Amino acid sequence: MYKKYVYDFTQGDADMKDLLGGKGAGLAEMTKIGMPVPRGITITTQACMDYYSNGEVISDEIRDQIFEYLKNLEKVTGKTFGGNKNPLLVSARSGAKISMPGMMDTILNLGLNPVTVEVLAKETGNRRFAYDSYRRFIMMLSDVAIGIDRNLFEDEMDKIKAEKGYSNDIDMKEDDLIRLCKIYKDIYKEHTGNDFPDDPKEQLMIAVKAVFKSWNNHRAISYRKLNNIPHDIGTAVNIQEMVYGNMGDDSGTGVAFTRNPATGEKKVFGEYLINAQGEDVVAGIRTPSPLEQLKTDMPEIYDQFIKYANMLENHFKDMQDIEFTIEKGKLFFLQTRSGKRTATAALRAAVDMVKEGLIDKKTAIMRIQADSLTQLMYPAFSKTALDNATPITKGLPASPGAASGRVYFSAEEAKEHAEAGEEVILVRKDTSPEDIDGMNKAKGIVTSHGGMTSHAAVVARGMGKCCVAGCEQMNVNEAEKYFEAGAVKIYEGDYISVNGTTGLVYKGILEKEEANMSGAFKTIMEWSDEYRRLKVRTNADTPTDARVALNFGAEGIGLCRTEHMFFKPERILEMRKMICSDSIKSRKEALSNILPMQIKDFEAMFKVMNGKNVTIRLLDPPLHEFLPKEQSDIKIIAKELGISEDSLRARIDELHEFNPMLGHRGCRLSVTYPEIAQMQARAIITAAINAKRYGAKVMPEIMIPLAGSKKELDYVMEVIKQEIKKVFEQENESIEYMLGTMIEVPRAALISKELAKSAEFFSYGTNDLTQMTYGFSRDDAGKFINDYIDKNILECDPFSSVDQEGVGRLVKLSKEEGKLSRPDLHCGVCGEHGGDPRSIYFFDSIGLDYVSCSPYRVPVARLAAAQASIKNA
Amino acid sequence: MYKKYVYDFTQGDADMKDLLGGKGAGLAEMTKIGMPVPRGITITTQACMDYYSNGEVISDEIRDQIFEYLKNLEKVTGKTFGGNKNPLLVSARSGAKISMPGMMDTILNLGLNPVTVEVLAKETGNRRFAYDSYRRFIMMLSDVAIGIDRNLFEDEMDKIKAEKGYSNDIDMKEDDLIRLCKIYKDIYKEHTGNDFPDDPKEQLMIAVKAVFKSWNNHRAISYRKLNNIPHDIGTAVNIQEMVYGNMGDDSGTGVAFTRNPATGEKKVFGEYLINAQGEDVVAGIRTPSPLEQLKTDMPEIYDQFIKYANMLENHFKDMQDIEFTIEKGKLFFLQTRSGKRTATAALRAAVDMVKEGLIDKKTAIMRIQADSLTQLMYPAFSKTALDNATPITKGLPASPGAASGRVYFSAEEAKEHAEAGEEVILVRKDTSPEDIDGMNKAKGIVTSHGGMTSHAAVVARGMGKCCVAGCEQMNVNEAEKYFEAGAVKIYEGDYISVNGTTGLVYKGILEKEEANMSGAFKTIMEWSDEYRRLKVRTNADTPTDARVALNFGAEGIGLCRTEHMFFKPERILEMRKMICSDSIKSRKEALSNILPMQIKDFEAMFKVMNGKNVTIRLLDPPLHEFLPKEQSDIKIIAKELGISEDSLRARIDELHEFNPMLGHRGCRLSVTYPEIAQMQARAIITAAINAKRYGAKVMPEIMIPLAGSKKELDYVMEVIKQEIKKVFEQENESIEYMLGTMIEVPRAALISKELAKSAEFFSYGTNDLTQMTYGFSRDDAGKFINDYIDKNILECDPFSSVDQEGVGRLVKLSKEEGKLSRPDLHCGVCGEHGGDPRSIYFFDSIGLDYVSCSPYRVPVARLAAAQASIKNA
Repeated sequence: MYKKYVYDFTQGDADMKDLLGGKGAGLAEMTKIGMPVPRGITITTQACMDYYSNGEVISDEIRDQIFEYLKNLEKVTGKTFGGNKNPLLVSARSGAKISMPGMMDTILNLGLNPVTVEVLAKETGNRRFAYDSYRRFIMMLSDVAIGIDRNLFEDEMDKIKAEKGYSNDIDMKEDDLIRLCKIYKDIYKEHTGNDFPDDPKEQLMIAVKAVFKSWNNHRAISYRKLNNIPHDIGTAVNIQEMVYGNMGDDSGTGVAFTRNPATGEKKVFGEYLINAQGEDVVAGIRTPSPLEQLKTDMPEIYDQFIKYANMLENHFKDMQDIEFTIEKGKLFFLQTRSGKRTATAALRAAVDMVKEGLIDKKTAIMRIQADSLTQLMYPAFSKTALDNATPITKGLPASPGAASGRVYFSAEEAKEHAEAGEEVILVRKDTSPEDIDGMNKAKGIVTSHGGMTSHAAVVARGMGKCCVAGCEQMNVNEAEKYFEAGAVKIYEGDYISVNGTTGLVYKGILEKEEANMSGAFKTIMEWSDEYRRLKVRTNADTPTDARVALNFGAEGIGLCRTEHMFFKPERILEMRKMICSDSIKSRKEALSNILPMQIKDFEAMFKVMNGKNVTIRLLDPPLHEFLPKEQSDIKIIAKELGISEDSLRARIDELHEFNPMLGHRGCRLSVTYPEIAQMQARAIITAAINAKRYGAKVMPEIMIPLAGSKKELDYVMEVIKQEIKKVFEQENESIEYMLGTMIEVPRAALISKELAKSAEFFSYGTNDLTQMTYGFSRDDAGKFINDYIDKNILECDPFSSVDQEGVGRLVKLSKEEGKLSRPDLHCGVCGEHGGDPRSIYFFDSIGLDYVSCSPYRVPVARLAAAQASIKNA
Repeated sequence: MYKKYVYDFTQGDADMKDLLGGKGAGLAEMTKIGMPVPRGITITTQACMDYYSNGEVISDEIRDQIFEYLKNLEKVTGKTFGGNKNPLLVSARSGAKISMPGMMDTILNLGLNPVTVEVLAKETGNRRFAYDSYRRFIMMLSDVAIGIDRNLFEDEMDKIKAEKGYSNDIDMKEDDLIRLCKIYKDIYKEHTGNDFPDDPKEQLMIAVKAVFKSWNNHRAISYRKLNNIPHDIGTAVNIQEMVYGNMGDDSGTGVAFTRNPATGEKKVFGEYLINAQGEDVVAGIRTPSPLEQLKTDMPEIYDQFIKYANMLENHFKDMQDIEFTIEKGKLFFLQTRSGKRTATAALRAAVDMVKEGLIDKKTAIMRIQADSLTQLMYPAFSKTALDNATPITKGLPASPGAASGRVYFSAEEAKEHAEAGEEVILVRKDTSPEDIDGMNKAKGIVTSHGGMTSHAAVVARGMGKCCVAGCEQMNVNEAEKYFEAGAVKIYEGDYISVNGTTGLVYKGILEKEEANMSGAFKTIMEWSDEYRRLKVRTNADTPTDARVALNFGAEGIGLCRTEHMFFKPERILEMRKMICSDSIKSRKEALSNILPMQIKDFEAMFKVMNGKNVTIRLLDPPLHEFLPKEQSDIKIIAKELGISEDSLRARIDELHEFNPMLGHRGCRLSVTYPEIAQMQARAIITAAINAKRYGAKVMPEIMIPLAGSKKELDYVMEVIKQEIKKVFEQENESIEYMLGTMIEVPRAALISKELAKSAEFFSYGTNDLTQMTYGFSRDDAGKFINDYIDKNILECDPFSSVDQEGVGRLVKLSKEEGKLSRPDLHCGVCGEHGGDPRSIYFFDSIGLDYVSCSPYRVPVARLAAAQASIKNA
């Protein structure tokens, strides 16, 4: 059976990303709509995967197709690969389905050899250029395909520069470059034992293989793990006719976004370098000029560029990230893709595009990465703090936000200190893909080189990490671990503050304030609310948290944990007395001292949540958590409790558990000590009555944790109902309330039909359900879960995104069978998965009623719920 | 709607046990087949349950029916309840569907009052008898219905006896008894404030209510819990015309079995007392005569008795336990029921009855309680030990078996010390239902009073507990905690040995030996094998265990745990070295030292199991279990390992887990340390090759524990397969083997369709599956599970009998979905439930292939599997 492994740019289109990769599909689409694109072909992602399954060998079939299409390329360009005249020179660039900027390899100027370099020299009339290209090609192939240290080549160039007294690369003369080519080839021979390949076809196959191989290099694998990109989709290879931005001052190269990627403003935004190759811009070695400069430098080209840029955005109906090259006054487009943007920019662009009539609301909603909203909720520096601080340096506002932390000068150290718990700022001359782990762990990033599209800037924006790039006045000494900015010298470990929104850097720690939600953010939230089916509640234990969540649009409290309330200093003593009681009487006495405090807690919650449901969970953790662990504390606390150290220790020993996760906790406490449930039920209902009398609308839902059998649930429900009946009688008042249960042990899910006969609502505690379904203790799994992710056994941490196959199946089954007994059973999720977009999509698909998440995730959940509704419709 | 609450004995039959209780149905059936049964009526179990649901009030409807039927009873007996002449006197006896001997209450002589007692005196010509009956009645009603301490009454009698110098109750004269009745009534009035009721109807209603109430007395509830009898089936009340065995030497009362309940021998076996009431026999106060004595005392009655006894057995086709009374030379039957018997007797009777043509093989199989077989596997004293020991006393061989332990003289102390881990022998004058918990905990029971049908004897046989009853020469002083037997004085805490098979008691501990399986046991096992579908394997870690299990009929090893092998002293050092290694190299080195030992282990197993499947599980426990916990050990072991104490302690800290049950164990170890799985796979396959070369047939099955995802399973399987491939190459030999997994985390069950694509067999680890499905840590649940059983939330410990609703549902689903991917998937159970009859029934019903249990449970499992096949057919 014939497998098509190679496509001409004229054969594909934007829908073929799976096969052609993002870059290949973009080049094909641009070709299709008539943009000036250098001609080329794409070797498919399938070829890459077949290369791997074929033991990392390129099959004859693939090879034959490549050369067949290459022949065609020669025909349409009128050039010959390795030809004596009009030689075809090409680049080989990676391009996966999902963009992985800078993670994989590229080789330029393929086809150069002692013959063609001379032809190129003659035809361009620029021998210096020809040999500069040749020496770059030798270095690139040696570095990328063979793995020879790039520094060996750089050093040789530096030697010549020193010898000749040149200060810049540009000073290198034709002869110097010819000599350098010779030296480079010697380095190649020394390392490989072979001559540098002159046969262009051999060069090409080496390059294709190198690109395929780069799919599995260390940093590409890391990037995929970090971004949840599958490992089995491979990269395509694009072989494209070379165009040169470094052929003089009528040449240049640049990158641009059709809108501002930091703010979303509708205005083409880019940077370019005159007389340079693309790599010079991306690598951040020279600081480029803003695109506006092109208007002055080459006004015609600028107009052409703007026309094509608008054409691209209108065609793709999304903000585009474009690479272009100007070769001797002729504009070429080398790449277009949907542009990475900050959350702020994404929101503004989406809302603007709806207003412009470019896209509809649904598309706008779908286009924003729900998770990215959390960026906007990072605190900013307070106005007062900014007014009173003097910046030590200024760079480009590469990725917005505010961060303070200790300075480290290498990604390794940044990572290490961050993992030890420090807040860390990574300061570098510039960053490279190797730094990705350290960047991920840092709170903020500062570089002295590179522009808005430098590696540091692009990656930081993708991570939602605050970044100031290109602080050119700053002098970074990575080896000696300090930087100087004017008169200020900052050493490793010193604190600085970074404002990614303004580009300013400060010494010390600046005070922060909360972000507010307005403008496009507000609009997108409103649109989301129009489309979403799932309700969004919050997990909040205090009125303060509840207020924050309300502000973010929470529609109720899905989980109010009561155990934190018991840890307050004035209460823990009574709690401990209760635990150390040897009679029901003294236990009840201690509980009755806690009662008025609990009433106050709940009353405040009800008042804040006025009119919205408040789900309160009864005491959940094992009692030993309330007792001291250290010998020194035991001494003090025994005295406080008025009991002997020995008897306190005996009680601690008695309560010790081998597996507290599976121990005496949740409603099991209420079975053994019904008086705890009684006290809490009394507190909740008394508080609700008080709040009602105060004028608030109250909708209490009492939630019983960890139920595993109907009889157990019934027992605890009966205890609660009896107590509430008493409260109603004593207060001569009654209110509506609901009694429900958490579904968090697998058995509860399996017997949901039974449980729903008693429970009026289910709340899935997917944290514990995951622990028990997988048999993973969350406190311990850290010790081996990385092995699982490294060995590709787990795609992601099941505590971050719900395991649909196992845990999700239980949730689905539970909801379906629960509704058999009680068709109006209300079902929600209160585990941390309630704030995870992928999980929210799943919960929507199985028809749950709501998710509940931490206050700061509420906007994420609202958006994700809307996206889920749209996708699941 | 009319509910029939009362049945005349002529209206029911043996099939109506649910409604009439066992006793009522038996009386009705005996009446039906023409046996001499005193006339009576039965108030249904439904009436009892309605009494409870009606707030413990007997409804008018029930009351009316009782008196309606009572009127009929008066008509057919020609007697009048409370009549001036020919008064009707009745007993009120409890009788639940399932026999609960002695657990509930009985009241005799209802209908006596100042008038009827005189009529009775006149009509019987025995005024002493009439007042003796009256005083017994007053005491019984006061004790049973009102709860007045029986000792108050006994003390008054003792006072009169002392005053008059009587030594026995029988010496009490007519006038003494009349005086006693007066005193008894005063006691009643003192306690209740009311006169003792004279109205027979009032007496009757008090008695009925007392019987209903006794359904929920403490000992009845305990008994039901112990015997897994539901709490919601209630007791019937049988109102029956009194007949008197205490009307002189032509009267008597007794109990008998149609076969010997200890041995099963086909020969009527019983005991009786001349001139006594039934309670005297059962209570064990007087030691009765063997039934044979009746042949001499009343030959005609004896012949009649034997005729009727045979008639009963032929009618019910089962060994009967009969109560009878002789009133002035006339024989009456008061009860018949299927007789409780030892396992030995059950086997012999069942096999004999098949040979006699009374029942078929299936019935024989169904009739034996599978669990009871374990009794036969209790060790007996060795012949040598018996030959060299002199008994200190002799009693009746009430329940067979052999036990040694420390003597305690109260049920409470026996229980307490047994729970503290001691082997305990309970020694009492006689036992009563209050002693049931202590009896259950003791290894053996010795009483100085009572016969083969005394409380101690009946209960001990039911429990399969060794018991010697009625050691009349023994003098037990319960208050001062010692007993004397001849010259020997044994104090609390001293060791004795009890031989329940011979009735002999020894000082000290006697050596025991294994029981052998022959005769009826063997026959029943053979018959079971004919009928059962489930295969029975064993859990065995050593060749010794494997041999024992083979002897009991095991068909393979379902679980060979390898961790115990690592704990042997010569290996643990290498194991610890492995764990403390800081490089793969040194880890492999330590493992390679363990390898030859593991090969030897497995080789021995394969040779013993020649031709049978051997399932070997890879290392399962978390590694910290192999490291020392105590400071003193750390010091020693650090030295042995040649590392510093600090670094050993650091490794221990590093491996510490909060919830080891959900931690780094099972196949998770093989993911982190594939070299462990490699070593074990190599050992298993090398051993199999060695055993094959030696001439054994080998069928190794390698079992991967705790898998939770297909990728995880595949990873470990690949490691194993690669290693085995190497072994085959090195040994130039290959053998068949299977690779499978345990299903023990709930997720594994949920994704069984996926797992079965890789695994060739599933073994359900129902212990862990129960822990995770319920969220119950087995190590910790002890702290609260009793609350659950006490509060009737759990019917039984889910670790003893599989939870069908939750865990069972997962097993069923897993097996069904696993077979979708692999129709010949082999599915078994290796958790402890594999030896539990109720669980085996379930596993058969869902179509598993085998169960695996501990060697001593193999016969139980074989029988239970046959019963399951018959029931599930």
